Amino acid sequence: MAKILSGAGLRGQSAGETALCTVGKAAAGLTYRGYDIDVLADKASFEEVAYLLLYGALPNRTQLHDYEHKLMSLRSLPEELKAVLELIPKNAHPMDVMRTGCSFLGNLEPELPFDKQPSLGLHAADRLIATLPAMVVYWYRFTHDGVRINTHNAHVPSLAGHFLTMLHDVEPSELHTKVMNASLILYAEHEFNASTFTARVCASTLSDMHSCITGGIGSLRGPLHGGANEAAMDMIEPWQSADEAEAALLQKLANKEKIMGFGHAIYSERDPRNDIIKKWSKKLSDAVGDDHLYAVSERCEAVMWREKKLFCNADFFHASAYRFMGIPTKLFTPIFVCSRVTGWAAHVMEQRANNRIIRPSADYIGPDHSEWVDIDQRH
Amino acid sequence: MAKILSGAGLRGQSAGETALCTVGKAAAGLTYRGYDIDVLADKASFEEVAYLLLYGALPNRTQLHDYEHKLMSLRSLPEELKAVLELIPKNAHPMDVMRTGCSFLGNLEPELPFDKQPSLGLHAADRLIATLPAMVVYWYRFTHDGVRINTHNAHVPSLAGHFLTMLHDVEPSELHTKVMNASLILYAEHEFNASTFTARVCASTLSDMHSCITGGIGSLRGPLHGGANEAAMDMIEPWQSADEAEAALLQKLANKEKIMGFGHAIYSERDPRNDIIKKWSKKLSDAVGDDHLYAVSERCEAVMWREKKLFCNADFFHASAYRFMGIPTKLFTPIFVCSRVTGWAAHVMEQRANNRIIRPSADYIGPDHSEWVDIDQRH
Ligand SMILES: CC(C)(COP(=O)(O)OP(=O)(O)OC[C@H]1O[C@@H](n2cnc3c(N)ncnc32)[C@H](O)[C@@H]1OP(=O)(O)O)[C@@H](O)C(=O)NCCC(=O)NCCS
Ligand SMILES: CC(C)(COP(=O)(O)OP(=O)(O)OC[C@H]1O[C@@H](n2cnc3c(N)ncnc32)[C@H](O)[C@@H]1OP(=O)(O)O)[C@@H](O)C(=O)NCCC(=O)NCCS
Repeated sequence: MAKILSGAGLRGQSAGETALCTVGKAAAGLTYRGYDIDVLADKASFEEVAYLLLYGALPNRTQLHDYEHKLMSLRSLPEELKAVLELIPKNAHPMDVMRTGCSFLGNLEPELPFDKQPSLGLHAADRLIATLPAMVVYWYRFTHDGVRINTHNAHVPSLAGHFLTMLHDVEPSELHTKVMNASLILYAEHEFNASTFTARVCASTLSDMHSCITGGIGSLRGPLHGGANEAAMDMIEPWQSADEAEAALLQKLANKEKIMGFGHAIYSERDPRNDIIKKWSKKLSDAVGDDHLYAVSERCEAVMWREKKLFCNADFFHASAYRFMGIPTKLFTPIFVCSRVTGWAAHVMEQRANNRIIRPSADYIGPDHSEWVDIDQRH
Repeated sequence: MAKILSGAGLRGQSAGETALCTVGKAAAGLTYRGYDIDVLADKASFEEVAYLLLYGALPNRTQLHDYEHKLMSLRSLPEELKAVLELIPKNAHPMDVMRTGCSFLGNLEPELPFDKQPSLGLHAADRLIATLPAMVVYWYRFTHDGVRINTHNAHVPSLAGHFLTMLHDVEPSELHTKVMNASLILYAEHEFNASTFTARVCASTLSDMHSCITGGIGSLRGPLHGGANEAAMDMIEPWQSADEAEAALLQKLANKEKIMGFGHAIYSERDPRNDIIKKWSKKLSDAVGDDHLYAVSERCEAVMWREKKLFCNADFFHASAYRFMGIPTKLFTPIFVCSRVTGWAAHVMEQRANNRIIRPSADYIGPDHSEWVDIDQRH
């Protein structure tokens, strides 16, 4: 494979404006509407952050209460959607399940053309934030445990707690709720990453919200993007000690393999989300009495930096953190969806507010002129 | 709404390389792998063009025969997929149906990671080319006519004929097959248009073929893109004469409305596809004894050029042509999908062959720094 084109992947080229997020500004590695990610992950709830992204400012207490209740009231899945989820086989990829569930919901609850609605797409966005967790867990529990779960959980207001309750049938500990909440905040928004950019390109044709989010899910699925947290887990899972990890990792580097969970298209020295999720992974490791997974992860971090000056991105310590909470690997990237849907939707609305169809050009490298040859003369 | 940013929509910026298509080169308004669109639409079958795009060269007679038979053998829909289609209400948007059908098929027949397959995605592509027409027509006939159609049509080798046969229960006339074939060729490929670009962004994360095509469908749905042929039909349908059309159109222009089916992001003087489909629309108009729709369409073309120097794009005369063949308006954009899936898939494979994740930057226009305020202090 292939030379890297200068400017390939639109790296470093601006594709538009946003007020939602900064990535990689000096001394502000990541902000959502100007708020530093460290502060948000420490102090906010995921619902506050979703509100900030979609409604433009942090909510006051009444607004937050109303918003939480709105999202709770929107949690239930239509019967036809459940029937579709039950038709999807157990061995399907959960990202395919979410992509399909989101797309199917668009048939039942089509968005009005956005210029005929009072908002730029808020209602469809809130409905998807409220239902995407249920879509994937409903399918997972049905196909893996043979149960049809309740997707209401009226006693669990937070989406973090709701997700874990649907998955485990019991309300999570305070620690798990906190980690899940922080994780959802870290993943909520990241400027013109590939999946968000997909959603914006789709929005720029004036297509509907379900198309945009469905497209975002499809892009996030790729191992170079959201799929990296699962790929990282698959890599570190078999390693029983830090030394074993180091030896295996060096071998992979010698084979010129890509190491998932490391590197970033924009950041060049560190990913500000890593410190936060790493700290939580450590707390969980202590809480569950883990004797090697955290150490393995830390060693990978050290080796990658020493050998390649590559640093952990948001995904790497998410792998161990999720594992310590008993989350199956195949649900890692779907959790990313449950969070990033807020950023995607906010970008769709921003694109709609000031739209021009996103239609770049290409450098043509094919034949100048091909002469038609009758079929019987072809070789 | 909004200033237009210079360079907004990535207009005129290159987002990568392609050997598939030229758009807007002097004296070659549109070529597929170097072949002029006029020649292809005149001489080729859609299957030949699909083969050209996906396999890299025009097929010889044996290759074409084998390819046609391969596509025919791949036509049938899995029972679970039919069950899903039957769950979608009659008033759904057929583009939502196709997006969902394509996504659902990805659960049943997931593509292998492309670096573990002998091809770059050919099999999944051929299967989608073979099934997308059946998905939309199966759903349409089930919900509108209460019948479960046969999606095989072993006696109808061409996709053009297959589509019309499924829709109308009888084999189409030679004229209709010819027009449909030409239409599918005209729509097959168009460089980095918004839906193709969506598919490439998705492919650049190394996601699967179904995600890429699902994303393409979602983008094509928008009225600024594939949705324009339906919107054009909705506009011209009520006009009973050319004079009525002219008056109404002038009124729309005075109201500064966008007129669907006119203008183009790359072409500035003419769309080379227009002459071709316009000629077919005229032939059909004569054949059905139409006494106003073609005249209405021609007048619109004249008025738009006179008033705004805007020309018909590929979509405008498609509206009348499809109407003359008895195709319901809501199936217009889905036909575009049945064709463009070839271009999308070829671009996905091209992206995979030389990939870098597509991740542009953005110009930040939000607050520099927002200071956290405790919730009880917020207004
Ligand atoms: C994130 C990522 C896609 C960014 O891609 P990019 O901006 O195109 O960066 P490049 O792939 O050009 O990386 C620059 C160099 O570092 C190397 N590199 C980058 N990430 C690497 C990784 N995770 N493992 C090994 N080498 C890596 C590249 O191979 C390249 O080396 P080269 O110049 O010798 O070819 C890339 O770092 C990657 O694939 N990481 C692993 C997947 C991942 O964790 N994704 C989640 C991102 S949040
Ligand atoms: C195809 C299209 C999206 C290209 O968009 P673009 O490259 O961003 O071009 P712009 O929208 O900047 O057009 C340039 C100017 O022509 C005007 N214009 C373009 N297409 C127009 C149309 N169909 N009707 C009325 N005015 C139009 C624009 O309003 C703009 O005028 P302004 O400079 O006074 O604002 C645009 O022409 C359009 O919306 N056409 C109608 C939808 C359609 O047929 N799409 C199918 C395309 S194959």
